[in-house]
Amino acid sequence: MSAGRFLTLEGGEGVGKSTQARALAAALETRGIHVVLTREPGGSEGAEAIRDLLMQGDVRRWSAHAEALLFAAARADHVEKRIRPMVDAGSWVICDRFIDSTRAYQGAQGIDDAAILALHGFGSRGLLPDRTLLLTLPDGEGDRRAQARDGGAADRFAARDDGFHRSVAATFDRIARDEADRVRRIDASGRVEQVTQRLIDAIADLLP
Amino acid sequence: MSAGRFLTLEGGEGVGKSTQARALAAALETRGIHVVLTREPGGSEGAEAIRDLLMQGDVRRWSAHAEALLFAAARADHVEKRIRPMVDAGSWVICDRFIDSTRAYQGAQGIDDAAILALHGFGSRGLLPDRTLLLTLPDGEGDRRAQARDGGAADRFAARDDGFHRSVAATFDRIARDEADRVRRIDASGRVEQVTQRLIDAIADLLP
Ligand SMILES: Nc1ncnc2c1ncn2[C@@H]1O[C@H](COP(=O)(O)OP(=O)(O)OP(=O)(O)O)[C@@H](O)[C@H]1O
Ligand SMILES: Nc1ncnc2c1ncn2[C@@H]1O[C@H](COP(=O)(O)OP(=O)(O)OP(=O)(O)O)[C@@H](O)[C@H]1O
Ligand SMILES: [Mg+2]
Ligand SMILES: [Mg+2]
Repeated sequence: MSAGRFLTLEGGEGVGKSTQARALAAALETRGIHVVLTREPGGSEGAEAIRDLLMQGDVRRWSAHAEALLFAAARADHVEKRIRPMVDAGSWVICDRFIDSTRAYQGAQGIDDAAILALHGFGSRGLLPDRTLLLTLPDGEGDRRAQARDGGAADRFAARDDGFHRSVAATFDRIARDEADRVRRIDASGRVEQVTQRLIDAIADLLP
Repeated sequence: MSAGRFLTLEGGEGVGKSTQARALAAALETRGIHVVLTREPGGSEGAEAIRDLLMQGDVRRWSAHAEALLFAAARADHVEKRIRPMVDAGSWVICDRFIDSTRAYQGAQGIDDAAILALHGFGSRGLLPDRTLLLTLPDGEGDRRAQARDGGAADRFAARDDGFHRSVAATFDRIARDEADRVRRIDASGRVEQVTQRLIDAIADLLP
């Protein structure tokens, strides 16, 4: 049995993370790889219950600090109950958003990156993906895709101002620069199949 | 307007924390003090929702680390939304269990005290009570009181073995020794009124 791998898809709203997570899973399965597709927040029974708390109610329901602790708790459960066991059993786990989304979104609310990583160290023993695929589109392009999908509805996290979204994008960019071994920026424009091929190229060195 | 105060009641199961929290609140109100009575986990709308997650399900539902993060998130909400605003407005807040219970119970599950205090620093800016009243009874005495009350039922946290309860008691004792200015050990044996008088004596220096 070959070793499992842990891959994450990251990026702003509507860039195509969920679409590509499914497409990448299908592409890997045709290569005979057993794939587990999961997402955050959530992905395990306990983490989904925490997700419900995070997603319900007003944008101001939780302080930024309480929110960061809830994300860390959900991730700890997801990592311990599902991600680690599946990777240890030889599966490839593809996760739609992970720690880098927390760094980008909670960071944009003023939470220190070192503090977020300390919570991740505590809750999830600092687990990082083998490869993170950061999907990028020109400003506003992801929003247009998401709005076309949702018919104009916005969830608790999407309903933020431009400065917020610029800060999120800047943090993703900084992480990609600082952790170039782990994180690859992927142009998410063009047809779905074209983007999926870029993702496969960006994990070619990990394939059996 | 005189300054508010923040008092906590701590100790093992069934020692009389909730009984004494109510009795102390009544005694302070007869002195013209405005009192807010609250409890943990919970005490604010968000924290009560987290409490439900912590209290439901099997003892093994959450890992010790996820549990510590959930307690820290609930406390952050309780402190920010209720405890700090009420103390700032001049009230005396009496809280039935607080950070020392987390240190004792999560500590007994192997979580490092420094890590718990770091989470408290992050979530609640390290808020500590003006005075903590640690109720103590001889071994097994609190269990007998709680079992008489509950008709033998045990909740997720009470349903632990003797080694666990000894570790909890040892941590409470250590905290009382190390932080003698803040924490007072109170003999919880005898009639309710006798115990309440001991509590009032232990906060005499704080009274207006
Ligand atoms: N390459 C593409 N070209 C055009 N539309 C696309 C492409 N990829 C995805 N879409 C569409 O864009 C919308 C957003 O895609 P998707 O839901 O995968 O994004 P997401 O990054 O998961 O969004 P969110 O952050 O809201 O979860 C969907 O309607 C999807 O069908
Ligand atoms: N001084 C006392 N003498 C005899 N019984 C008491 C005394 N104080 C409280 N009790 C009774 O003991 C039981 C436990 O008291 P209480 O619920 O206040 O404890 P507690 O510390 O809040 O327990 P828990 O940890 O389960 O919340 C109750 O039935 C209460 O009426
Ligand atoms: Mg999505
Ligand atoms: Mg009680």
